[in-house]
Amino acid sequence: MPKLLYPTSLTLDPKLLEGYSVDLVPYNVKETIPEEHTDAEILVAWTNSAANLKDAASRLTKLRWIQSLAAGPNDVLGAGFDPSKITITTGSGLHDHTVAEHTLGLLLNAARRFYEMRDSQLQGKWPGHLGGPQPDRPAGKFTTLQDANVVVWGFGNIAKCLTPWLTALGANVKGVARSKGVRNGIEIYAEDDLKDILPTTDALVMILPGSDATKHALNAERLKLLPNHAWIVNVGRGTSVDEDALADALEQGTIGGAALDVFETEPYPEGGRLYKTPNTIVSPHAAGGRPQNPEDLIAWNLRKFLAGQELKNVI
Amino acid sequence: MPKLLYPTSLTLDPKLLEGYSVDLVPYNVKETIPEEHTDAEILVAWTNSAANLKDAASRLTKLRWIQSLAAGPNDVLGAGFDPSKITITTGSGLHDHTVAEHTLGLLLNAARRFYEMRDSQLQGKWPGHLGGPQPDRPAGKFTTLQDANVVVWGFGNIAKCLTPWLTALGANVKGVARSKGVRNGIEIYAEDDLKDILPTTDALVMILPGSDATKHALNAERLKLLPNHAWIVNVGRGTSVDEDALADALEQGTIGGAALDVFETEPYPEGGRLYKTPNTIVSPHAAGGRPQNPEDLIAWNLRKFLAGQELKNVI
Repeated sequence: MPKLLYPTSLTLDPKLLEGYSVDLVPYNVKETIPEEHTDAEILVAWTNSAANLKDAASRLTKLRWIQSLAAGPNDVLGAGFDPSKITITTGSGLHDHTVAEHTLGLLLNAARRFYEMRDSQLQGKWPGHLGGPQPDRPAGKFTTLQDANVVVWGFGNIAKCLTPWLTALGANVKGVARSKGVRNGIEIYAEDDLKDILPTTDALVMILPGSDATKHALNAERLKLLPNHAWIVNVGRGTSVDEDALADALEQGTIGGAALDVFETEPYPEGGRLYKTPNTIVSPHAAGGRPQNPEDLIAWNLRKFLAGQELKNVI
Repeated sequence: MPKLLYPTSLTLDPKLLEGYSVDLVPYNVKETIPEEHTDAEILVAWTNSAANLKDAASRLTKLRWIQSLAAGPNDVLGAGFDPSKITITTGSGLHDHTVAEHTLGLLLNAARRFYEMRDSQLQGKWPGHLGGPQPDRPAGKFTTLQDANVVVWGFGNIAKCLTPWLTALGANVKGVARSKGVRNGIEIYAEDDLKDILPTTDALVMILPGSDATKHALNAERLKLLPNHAWIVNVGRGTSVDEDALADALEQGTIGGAALDVFETEPYPEGGRLYKTPNTIVSPHAAGGRPQNPEDLIAWNLRKFLAGQELKNVI
């Protein structure tokens, strides 16, 4: 019977995985895999350290499949698991709802200026300039999602979860992805169209994966195309934004603000520039980090694996 | 032809009011009504000072109808307009979407702890404890709207705008109002039921109007019924919460937090206790303050007024 190692770094219910001809064994991701379990053919990974994952890649010589619960495969690939020899599947889809919720929160934080209210509160002062009667949807300001032009760059499952909420709140949503079309009722543009879309964007939500192709996708040139009041919300990968160019734009006031959950280096270094740039919201990679119903994905893939069929989320 | 005075304190499009046998005259709410316009029969009010409104109540002797754009009638009644002699209509409904959006923002600010992230950011530090891998929906914490028990106390038009969004985000929503039933697919309980509902509440959203009947509706006794992790969000009237009892509960940690857009005294006094209580979000009465499409309501009521029929939002 093949042995499956599942991590104790999250509350998995092994009952939900029972019923297959497989030996279910828990393991502690904070330690290297015990010698007696190096015969495992299946490894489920979640929050394993780079060192322990690398150790597992070298010692689990019988491994045929690794199921990561992270959205992307970067940590598994970095540890040396070889996709030409074993099946690598990600946790894509397990983080859609949580990341989408965080994104909506960041958008409302930006529009409603909760971050700025906090600064007054910490001084024991009423931020009167942010309350009371206000102009309704003034030109040149991002103050509400109602009638706001929101562009979602990177249109996968997170975007599909997020955009119905944005639409319900009254936003005009466009998507940007590699291929054009209409998905889930949202018109999707190609990256080449950004030059036409960005000048009328009130909020640009970035949900791009980390890769060479997306590195500094939002660069100085594209930042210049945005109106002065436009906000950037990045919940994808920090590498997709040129942080120096972003900090320049924030300091010069050529964009409205930035709400960032991801950074080129994480933790974002103490005293770093983006902690202090105007209208910047620093969120510590908190959007996801809580896989939703991982047992469903593992059980599905386990069935397919044992049947020799194609798994979900293969990289 | 009756004269209608409309305020220049917001951008009203008088074209949207044309077509009736009425003389449309703009006026400045920051000054008293000019002598030549004291013959007005209709007054539209928005952000008039208490003194100027009181002046208008005494000098506009031919007034037959006052249309306030505020959600409630308190300022008009306080100025001395007499509902037994003239028709008083409010702007109820003009603020539903904006207040509901702000409420959703406060709920997500609470669940995703943006306020706490801000404190680290201001010190140039990464709030690592709020990010990275997190337990999924841990018992005894309010960390997401997904599967959260949200109780909306005060179930009028704002609640009807808000609750579909909460439901879409995965929350289990209950309403509390004077009469039981099912409204917009939400089960509505009576205030007598609060003792049964509060102990399983993760977030209590208060949208009560200001009146003697709602004064300190949330008192020490009801606060004690809430679990230690429950959040209060108040976007109704500050008088509906006993602020001393709330501050005690926050300091003692017997509730999870409070996001307050309204206060018993506004501006909330400098150095006041609730600026410093743990897990407290102070928002400066910023939820509404932007009437949406006020011309629609004014035009509707103008038609009914001229036809001698019943107006909308009569107090």
